[in-house]
Amino acid sequence: MRQPGCELCEAEGGQLVLSNEWLRVVLVDDPGFPGFARVIWKDHVREMSDLGADEQQRLMQTVFAVERAQRDVLAPAKVNLASLGNVTPHLHWHVIPRFADDSHFPQPVWGPRQRASGAAVLEARRALLDGLRHRIAEEVARVRQP
Amino acid sequence: MRQPGCELCEAEGGQLVLSNEWLRVVLVDDPGFPGFARVIWKDHVREMSDLGADEQQRLMQTVFAVERAQRDVLAPAKVNLASLGNVTPHLHWHVIPRFADDSHFPQPVWGPRQRASGAAVLEARRALLDGLRHRIAEEVARVRQP
Repeated sequence: MRQPGCELCEAEGGQLVLSNEWLRVVLVDDPGFPGFARVIWKDHVREMSDLGADEQQRLMQTVFAVERAQRDVLAPAKVNLASLGNVTPHLHWHVIPRFADDSHFPQPVWGPRQRASGAAVLEARRALLDGLRHRIAEEVARVRQP
Repeated sequence: MRQPGCELCEAEGGQLVLSNEWLRVVLVDDPGFPGFARVIWKDHVREMSDLGADEQQRLMQTVFAVERAQRDVLAPAKVNLASLGNVTPHLHWHVIPRFADDSHFPQPVWGPRQRASGAAVLEARRALLDGLRHRIAEEVARVRQP
């Protein structure tokens, strides 16, 4: 079910990593946060509690698979998970690898900037993104289907 | 397993609504966001991907039960879910009912303030918190155990 005018019904919402019958995983094109991923439910659904239990589990297991891939490839200090959707109320999860030297740490990425990001360290992380895409695909393929 | 110096090992983290073998649910004492709840895993665990599949499911089903209770009692415009933990890396979920007239909407609660909250509307929402506590307890009791 598509909702006319919904940004996530009408566009991918990032660089596509994988897509299946229920959801897609994209990498967000945010130069300050290499590896920032989103898991986007395909149907235009508003809240997690609007999904059935099997759908909830499928979506969350995919979010955790992306988290595992980010930890394996990028070794972040912390992974931040969030489903907000105040602006775009189409169910999607932000999966954000965080580093002590990133521009906002330890604030949320939506909070006040703490420092400038180092260009060299960002470049080094960007060089890992091809590997991350492969690892996400592997981890998501291993998700136990409910 | 308790971690000395961890804020969520050493204190409740809010006004206790319920507690079981694995987790607790608290209401956060934030005057601008009545109904803001947290679901806190009891053990000092860092990331969702550090839990087993059954533990992940138990925790997320509790988060969604809290969301259902907030929707039933408060009828928010949107529910925001987030597990961040950059400052306190002890697994906990923020479950935040959001309203078009709240101080930060549609920004995340960690983002820039958009307006002052109306005192009357906050008071009206606070009057629903006893009912919310009961509803959360009911919804969490109905969670299917994995």
